Amino acid sequence: MSHADAVRSYWEAAERRDWETFASLLCEDVAYRLPQTGETITGKRRYLRFNIELPGDWHITVHRVLAGEDEAASWVRAKVGDDQQDALTFFRFDAAGEISEITDFWPERYVAPARPDGVVDER
Amino acid sequence: MSHADAVRSYWEAAERRDWETFASLLCEDVAYRLPQTGETITGKRRYLRFNIELPGDWHITVHRVLAGEDEAASWVRAKVGDDQQDALTFFRFDAAGEISEITDFWPERYVAPARPDGVVDER
Repeated sequence: MSHADAVRSYWEAAERRDWETFASLLCEDVAYRLPQTGETITGKRRYLRFNIELPGDWHITVHRVLAGEDEAASWVRAKVGDDQQDALTFFRFDAAGEISEITDFWPERYVAPARPDGVVDER
Repeated sequence: MSHADAVRSYWEAAERRDWETFASLLCEDVAYRLPQTGETITGKRRYLRFNIELPGDWHITVHRVLAGEDEAASWVRAKVGDDQQDALTFFRFDAAGEISEITDFWPERYVAPARPDGVVDER
């Protein structure tokens, strides 16, 4: 399976709550990192539990997937009810083609600072 | 120039404040989007001005670059003094190989919510 296909399967399996397929894509000592909180989750069993126990009826739409030799990136949109948020995720793969590292970013909306006159499009 | 090389040149030119090289990578009607604020900047001239007038003595370190057929993604770290922040950027390219679309995400730190017992690594 290509790394791009593995990333698409990862998100599709998460969306279906198909944890068997989801787990099959991960190596045993997968590391999941959330740089915004400083949290790390290590190991397939713990990372599965983290996902299975995520609160809310969340749904994922995949926007873009890019892959390199031993890495990949995705941009997805997560919806919970009327709320939606983009997630940017960077993956690394081991020699067996399993996901060994996942780094997730969840940027939130913020109020734009002042910009130079006439630079930003009118809305 | 490969799309991955174009993205590396984009960040290196920004870091050097080499606006001529930076501009040469962009198509005339490039669109820059900041989904977190809802802002869009359209056109090479305005997008250049936006960058040239960004406040602060910012410095960019490139962590990862991935490229596909007509797109690319990067993960960079921006430092301004002692502050640092990750930026995740998705690029599209036109048929001439120029950057036609840039979508930038600037996730900020937040306090982790409660997690299931024993899932997150001790720090």
